[in-house]
Amino acid sequence: MKNIHGGVTAPKGFTASGLYAGIKKKRKDIALVYSVTPAKGAGTFTTNVVKAAPVLWDAKLTKESEYIQAIIINSGVANACTGELGDKNNLLMVEAVAKELQIPTSSVYTASTGIIGKQLPIDIIQASIPNLVKKLDESIKAGTLAAESIMTTDTYSKEYAVTCLVGGKEITVGGMAKGSGMIHPNMATLIGVVTSDISISKELLQEAISEDVKRSFNMISVDRDTSTNDSLLVMANGMAGNDEITEKNEDYYEFCKALNTVTTTLAKMIAADGEGATKLLEVTVKGARDKEEAIILSKSIITSNLVKTAVFGNDANWGRILCAMGYSGVEFDPYKVDLTLESEDGSLQLVKNGMATDYSEELATTILSAKEVKAIADINQGKSYATAWGCDFSYDYVKINADYRS
Amino acid sequence: MKNIHGGVTAPKGFTASGLYAGIKKKRKDIALVYSVTPAKGAGTFTTNVVKAAPVLWDAKLTKESEYIQAIIINSGVANACTGELGDKNNLLMVEAVAKELQIPTSSVYTASTGIIGKQLPIDIIQASIPNLVKKLDESIKAGTLAAESIMTTDTYSKEYAVTCLVGGKEITVGGMAKGSGMIHPNMATLIGVVTSDISISKELLQEAISEDVKRSFNMISVDRDTSTNDSLLVMANGMAGNDEITEKNEDYYEFCKALNTVTTTLAKMIAADGEGATKLLEVTVKGARDKEEAIILSKSIITSNLVKTAVFGNDANWGRILCAMGYSGVEFDPYKVDLTLESEDGSLQLVKNGMATDYSEELATTILSAKEVKAIADINQGKSYATAWGCDFSYDYVKINADYRS
Repeated sequence: MKNIHGGVTAPKGFTASGLYAGIKKKRKDIALVYSVTPAKGAGTFTTNVVKAAPVLWDAKLTKESEYIQAIIINSGVANACTGELGDKNNLLMVEAVAKELQIPTSSVYTASTGIIGKQLPIDIIQASIPNLVKKLDESIKAGTLAAESIMTTDTYSKEYAVTCLVGGKEITVGGMAKGSGMIHPNMATLIGVVTSDISISKELLQEAISEDVKRSFNMISVDRDTSTNDSLLVMANGMAGNDEITEKNEDYYEFCKALNTVTTTLAKMIAADGEGATKLLEVTVKGARDKEEAIILSKSIITSNLVKTAVFGNDANWGRILCAMGYSGVEFDPYKVDLTLESEDGSLQLVKNGMATDYSEELATTILSAKEVKAIADINQGKSYATAWGCDFSYDYVKINADYRS
Repeated sequence: MKNIHGGVTAPKGFTASGLYAGIKKKRKDIALVYSVTPAKGAGTFTTNVVKAAPVLWDAKLTKESEYIQAIIINSGVANACTGELGDKNNLLMVEAVAKELQIPTSSVYTASTGIIGKQLPIDIIQASIPNLVKKLDESIKAGTLAAESIMTTDTYSKEYAVTCLVGGKEITVGGMAKGSGMIHPNMATLIGVVTSDISISKELLQEAISEDVKRSFNMISVDRDTSTNDSLLVMANGMAGNDEITEKNEDYYEFCKALNTVTTTLAKMIAADGEGATKLLEVTVKGARDKEEAIILSKSIITSNLVKTAVFGNDANWGRILCAMGYSGVEFDPYKVDLTLESEDGSLQLVKNGMATDYSEELATTILSAKEVKAIADINQGKSYATAWGCDFSYDYVKINADYRS
């Protein structure tokens, strides 16, 4: 497997476009991803009881539609808490795209991100569709334009792509995502799109992505707020020419590996670019009795405001890490916990058997000052482990969110 | 029932003292509360798996000791994650107090608050005990000195007292507490002490406080971090002269009312004085099918970083409130939710049936600018309700916690 340049347009047969329609004040706000042939579709969605109109639409399509061929995404307005008018506007958006591309409405996924409770400016969106379709292009740049158009408070666009051999054919998996705030995915991230030219059955594509998010997007958190709009949408158009994968054979697992590389990379980008974040925090909990225990503990650490502010301040206040593990709901013996900090600047064991080692505070501060910081907690009661990604908590998180709507 | 001046020394037969021993850099750091006669003791403690040495000691005493007569509390060091030496130091602290007061060690509760993972400076503490005992005094001022000595990042000390008639006798309930950060009590608050001169059986005293915290200290949150040291300790010495309460009669419920007034007032003080807080946020969720549902929903709202930063910015971003309700785990129909904001500056319905009313953003900002802001969410699916208290999330929370140990 190798990393290649680009994102959603990297696989064969995918085009994209992104532009400024006028939903937001200044920045690009609408994107389209298109497969030149009908593709298998799959998706995972927020578990929030309050679900945005596009989430309800996409979940229905994921169950009922044989093929997906386009994904239309706007930023600026989330189309959540918008009632019947919200559903109607979502459908109007679908119809405009379907008409312009001459494909069935049942093959058009939608996604929206931005302010909750506002109605979509549907006339502005409808007016932009012909131009958006006209600009569809298979270039890397077109993929980047799409990735830029779905950003809200993200400070940079997020794309990744890999190729690998499946059944003797080179297949490609590409993706883009946006995150930043209200990030605590519980099925998928705020908005992610993954494209691939692999040939695979709809059922296995869905299973692959449903399993994948447990280790990728569901393992990140910026602020513990699970969004109303989380959607990860996938299209696989089969243009790589491999024999269709219809069972869990070697080819399937090779694809899963490529998929996980793309999704985990995008997920980590989202964590590192969390609102106000100055660094990426990677937490691995090992020595757990089962995977679920390790997941709960690692996520409890990365979501603790006290851990996050300490990391921002480069302060090795490890007591807060043990405290966050302690209230997670998982039973463990505090006096069996070992804790190590790591970054490109070194590695340092802070805690042995639940108590402070004679560590150097100076070295701890140096390690914590890096752009990527790892914490490894071993609870020494089993063999399972999990890794979660988060970020530190800075003044800018407060600044961004105290006046998000103004 | 009426509110009177003072705190833990307000009831008959209680004395207190507080002074600077040298555990912290500058501020008062040790307090003692004493009942001149042996008192019934009760307590509720953190559910964090990582429990501080004083928590383990107090929980044991609560089960095994017939009488409690003194509570010794230090701030600056939490005596958590300190292993056998931590337990030993805690016992040394108990023994020093017991010796000086000539009471059994089994009648001395302890509490510690401050940095996790550091050992208690036990010689400093031992050296301060004779002086602490010498200064014990029944005055209101002595109670305040004790309340000041248990503060960490609190910006003011927290005391409250009420009197009422029980069985024809005037009884008094007084209390003090400290909070500020790592506040998401799950049995009790960081440190709270309640004293009363009521005569009541040990069993009913414990039941009264265990039920009480569900509606008082367990309903507040500053940062969703449940501490390793949460302890609420109660002494009732019977000096009011009422007939001992041994059953759940009218007298019992009268006492519970007085107790709840003291604990809820202290809990609200802690929420309002949360680290970096500029205002108190009171959230009531009503129309729930049962109490538990209402509790989960109201706590989900007060712990959301996005809600808290919006309140700091005086921004009526109600979508975040619905979002926080949506990921709480409680099932409800988003399109049946009504939401109203209230403060001394007015009342405004923002949401009707899950969607925005045509409200004035200007009035919403005015209401949110008050020192105490209330949000009332009605999910219209039943008759239960609950109220939770939190605070907004400001730059100063980050500032305080980025360099707490330095």
